[in-house]
Amino acid sequence: MKCLLLVAHGSRRSASNDEIRKLATKLSARAAGSFDEVSCAFLEIAQPSIQEGIQQLIDRGAHEVVVLPYFLSAGRHVAEDIPREVRAKQAEHPGVAVRIAPYLGAAEHVPELLLALAEG
Amino acid sequence: MKCLLLVAHGSRRSASNDEIRKLATKLSARAAGSFDEVSCAFLEIAQPSIQEGIQQLIDRGAHEVVVLPYFLSAGRHVAEDIPREVRAKQAEHPGVAVRIAPYLGAAEHVPELLLALAEG
Repeated sequence: MKCLLLVAHGSRRSASNDEIRKLATKLSARAAGSFDEVSCAFLEIAQPSIQEGIQQLIDRGAHEVVVLPYFLSAGRHVAEDIPREVRAKQAEHPGVAVRIAPYLGAAEHVPELLLALAEG
Repeated sequence: MKCLLLVAHGSRRSASNDEIRKLATKLSARAAGSFDEVSCAFLEIAQPSIQEGIQQLIDRGAHEVVVLPYFLSAGRHVAEDIPREVRAKQAEHPGVAVRIAPYLGAAEHVPELLLALAEG
């Protein structure tokens, strides 16, 4: 079972966290063939945490988890904090493959997406 | 002359601000036919500010400016702060059309982009 965990920063505004949860649901609906399950987790402030999110997927049977940072820049959160959380959980479950995908801001097609938005 | 102003939050990490400047340059290279010029501005911390960024484009001859919020969620920055800055500058230049495009997180194709990143 291969799963995707969308990881956002987490906000004091619950509407922002709900926006992430809705996005994970949208991803889930489109992930057929790529991922058996998609959920989300938060680096700070909101729940579940990254470690909790990975654990929930493992409890549901994941043998492979892809962690996708929903971040725009390669700051400390992307470079250090997310990898640290993932390593800690990976160490507890050496039989599960946990991989971190590139963060959103690094996506090749971001410029096209932005131009499409701007052109309206 | 129609211009695009990519607006990011602004960071204490100068590398993050430079990432935005590089993205504006990339957009500029791909914007032929849609925008005559693309630049960037920051809501906080980094320069130019949103008002300065719009002014620079007007000084270079813009009669239309599209402000594109490089933000992932519809928080206070997107809902209130950016519109307030844009309104203030628009009031000074009623002959220039300044429009705010949807923020990045609202883009229809974000889910496909995320799945493509996750599939690696």
